[in-house]
Amino acid sequence: MRIVRYQETESGEVSYGVLGADELITPLDGDPYGERRAFDRPARPLAEVTLLAPVEPSKVIAVGRNFAAHAAELGNQVPERPLIFLKPSTSVVGPGARIVFPEYTDELHHEAELAAVIGVRCRDLKPDEVPGVLLGYTCANDVTARDLQKPDGQWWRAKGSDTFCPLGPWVETELDPAGLRITATVNGELRQEGGTHQMVRPVNELIAHISAAMTLLPGDVVLTGTPAGVSRMSPGDTVTIAVEGVGELTNTVVRAI
Amino acid sequence: MRIVRYQETESGEVSYGVLGADELITPLDGDPYGERRAFDRPARPLAEVTLLAPVEPSKVIAVGRNFAAHAAELGNQVPERPLIFLKPSTSVVGPGARIVFPEYTDELHHEAELAAVIGVRCRDLKPDEVPGVLLGYTCANDVTARDLQKPDGQWWRAKGSDTFCPLGPWVETELDPAGLRITATVNGELRQEGGTHQMVRPVNELIAHISAAMTLLPGDVVLTGTPAGVSRMSPGDTVTIAVEGVGELTNTVVRAI
Repeated sequence: MRIVRYQETESGEVSYGVLGADELITPLDGDPYGERRAFDRPARPLAEVTLLAPVEPSKVIAVGRNFAAHAAELGNQVPERPLIFLKPSTSVVGPGARIVFPEYTDELHHEAELAAVIGVRCRDLKPDEVPGVLLGYTCANDVTARDLQKPDGQWWRAKGSDTFCPLGPWVETELDPAGLRITATVNGELRQEGGTHQMVRPVNELIAHISAAMTLLPGDVVLTGTPAGVSRMSPGDTVTIAVEGVGELTNTVVRAI
Repeated sequence: MRIVRYQETESGEVSYGVLGADELITPLDGDPYGERRAFDRPARPLAEVTLLAPVEPSKVIAVGRNFAAHAAELGNQVPERPLIFLKPSTSVVGPGARIVFPEYTDELHHEAELAAVIGVRCRDLKPDEVPGVLLGYTCANDVTARDLQKPDGQWWRAKGSDTFCPLGPWVETELDPAGLRITATVNGELRQEGGTHQMVRPVNELIAHISAAMTLLPGDVVLTGTPAGVSRMSPGDTVTIAVEGVGELTNTVVRAI
């Protein structure tokens, strides 16, 4: 099942819904956590609404250097323990939204990632309990101001600036994360290519590790690391993150004004 | 004015309110942002309710090494640019709540801080615009697993574990942050003592810097750094953070079970 969050063009109303194979959205009453109920309203054609980020996370938790080839391309080792960091909710944007290239960086990178979406409040999970707490998966671009990571020390704005966490286009609830191809293309040119089988620490292990320190809430998002091939994005670029079995997340880059 | 958030003992209902000098709470209708309206309910004696964290931040943004004497005591330089990091909403607890000492650390420190509370959605502030966007100030304990900061690299759990951000006891809306004494006591013994006049970067400059990278939302909290004297907390300890003109925030430390 594909869960979307969308905005009506005329009224501006925002709803969750279920996207069918016929490109019709069945509106949901409330949010998709817990028991899902169809709303007593007609289905909406996908083409007539604006898709938003499919979730509204209280926090986004991400992992660095979870693909050996990506760690190596930046001259880093795979860390002994998972390298975890936070991105704030204000960094999240949806499919089609603009990624704003801030004036305080000269080197903005895309990072294509599989994103896991938490479905229920949870803590202290064992790895085999993780599939049971997930709503599903979506695509993420873990936008990174590469030149700020070392000088800033903590990655608050290198990873957490406004618009630095595109998510979407929807949450796929029926997905086995094993063996999925992940790519990033910039203006149609393939830049990143890898697969979930290359993860140093698989999804369940990562989320269990995070949940030992902090409570995860419905809608929270865990970004699971990026394969090799990260590269610069420039104003005017169109960037597409694709995760096999989920879909494609496309955003454009604009200069801050 | 002192703004509190509190829970009724019997019904469990949570409300915002205004605490008067008579220790009576006038309930507010909704949240304290925007126009504040008294709720059509009788005032509640402070002693009959449980105070919660006075705000529900979407994010907590904090600064490291903003007091020269504290940077020196840990063998650090005052950084050239503000050392900013994020604490998630799930780390926030209120006055009287327990700070949980996790099993993955051996060195848990208190850090007494003045906390600024954002009152309106804002971005790209100039320093002189900051007072106009604040709801007020409260006390914070920026709880830190000191032994995890270097090995983890990013401070996600050294600073962001559950219960690592006690806030309270209320938001004081009429406060000039200049020249305020900040202290931490553990079991009644003075450990930290300093004043806001010792900040390397004052409140307005810090918040303006943060707002250049990320949108601040009503209820978001900015921790403004800790004076010298940080020290260990142990299970069983009672820790009180006091900020002159605001009040006292007291929490107890318990071992994770």
